[in-house]
Amino acid sequence: MSETSSFAVILIRPQLGENIGMVARAMLNCGLTDLRLVRPRDGWPSEKARASASGADIVIDNVQVFETTEDAIADLNFILATTARTRDMTKGVFTPEGAAKELRNRTDGGGNSGILFGRESAGLDNDDIALADAAITVPLNPDFTSLNLAQAVLLIGYEWYKWADKTPDHDLVMPSDTRPAERQEVLMMLEHLESELDARGFLRPVEKRPVMVRNIRNVFWRAGFSEKEVRTFRGIITALTKHKRRY
Amino acid sequence: MSETSSFAVILIRPQLGENIGMVARAMLNCGLTDLRLVRPRDGWPSEKARASASGADIVIDNVQVFETTEDAIADLNFILATTARTRDMTKGVFTPEGAAKELRNRTDGGGNSGILFGRESAGLDNDDIALADAAITVPLNPDFTSLNLAQAVLLIGYEWYKWADKTPDHDLVMPSDTRPAERQEVLMMLEHLESELDARGFLRPVEKRPVMVRNIRNVFWRAGFSEKEVRTFRGIITALTKHKRRY
Repeated sequence: MSETSSFAVILIRPQLGENIGMVARAMLNCGLTDLRLVRPRDGWPSEKARASASGADIVIDNVQVFETTEDAIADLNFILATTARTRDMTKGVFTPEGAAKELRNRTDGGGNSGILFGRESAGLDNDDIALADAAITVPLNPDFTSLNLAQAVLLIGYEWYKWADKTPDHDLVMPSDTRPAERQEVLMMLEHLESELDARGFLRPVEKRPVMVRNIRNVFWRAGFSEKEVRTFRGIITALTKHKRRY
Repeated sequence: MSETSSFAVILIRPQLGENIGMVARAMLNCGLTDLRLVRPRDGWPSEKARASASGADIVIDNVQVFETTEDAIADLNFILATTARTRDMTKGVFTPEGAAKELRNRTDGGGNSGILFGRESAGLDNDDIALADAAITVPLNPDFTSLNLAQAVLLIGYEWYKWADKTPDHDLVMPSDTRPAERQEVLMMLEHLESELDARGFLRPVEKRPVMVRNIRNVFWRAGFSEKEVRTFRGIITALTKHKRRY
């Protein structure tokens, strides 16, 4: 990801150093590094922030501190404001996913964006919200919406990161020493199993044999075998059909 | 949301009560209430957990504690295991979004699902992962993937909540005492502005007037006026065209 496709996280009057650190950690989880603080209550730098950043030093080291929200956003051209409440304003409101799309679209065109987050106890002032192009509200359980600061940053950063991420929704992952089994390998394993079951009279009566075989096969297809697992299961069939040894 | 469409969050050997509380808070944010603990290091109940749950008492009050992972998942029929690392196993791996779809599909059919989360310092043991149908890995900055426990729960719960949520990606929200302006209301405001500009010789030369008018109008269309804002702006035009009063 290039620097130009990123956005700034701007914390307005954050109270606890720990929370600033957790924000830095959540940002770096999502590949974000531009953290700006407006009048942090306990000053800056903060050793508590560094400790709770859990190694996100690159974010902590690059923090910029400002006296006013206006100063903090002066070089940006698209600003969003996070808010849990519906305010007495006419304003565009994005979900985190909608905001991620909008930020990606804008920053691909070379813009500089930023997102405002209010202080822990009270959120953003209406005057700060009025400085933003639009708002972001995270849709959550309406009976319990209070998110801590780092979690709000994480959800928005995560949607932004996800927008460029190509990980498939579901994938069969296996060790590097094997590969998905070919159809014929699994069929030979199934025929091995079925021949041993035939030899023991399990697949009877004969008119029921086709449906029994199909039902057994379906279990194995659902499992999605690797080549190595096929070999293991052929060994299992062989072991089960041996006479028990006494040790 | 009905109880049956939910899933259990199962923390395996969690270490800090604070983290259990933050998990409870993140769960309730997403409408989840079934929290199960396997051998919490500092015992249960935990006053630290209750304090850091920030009001998610319903989750804390319903916590169930178990001796083994097997006991904790005995009544469930679909289990996912969260892991940041690619393990030496052949296993299906979901993203949080993919897992959310799968859980929704399964629980709509009446199943009971659960998600395993490992302890803060080390994640899940391979034996616990081997008890799960599939894994979940959150795609994040590969150079900095460490998520705290509550954040991992939050991201998965958020995707699950989002799957049933109908909030539009972007919406124009306004106070209840107004409504979106009708086209004619905005056009009359624009004509008011343009006639005042004509009267002052601003829209000249005459052959440039059409393009100047179009450019001005585009700014106002982008803004998406409410009916109340149209009235405010007509007042502004009137005020600006008055002679200055001296006080």
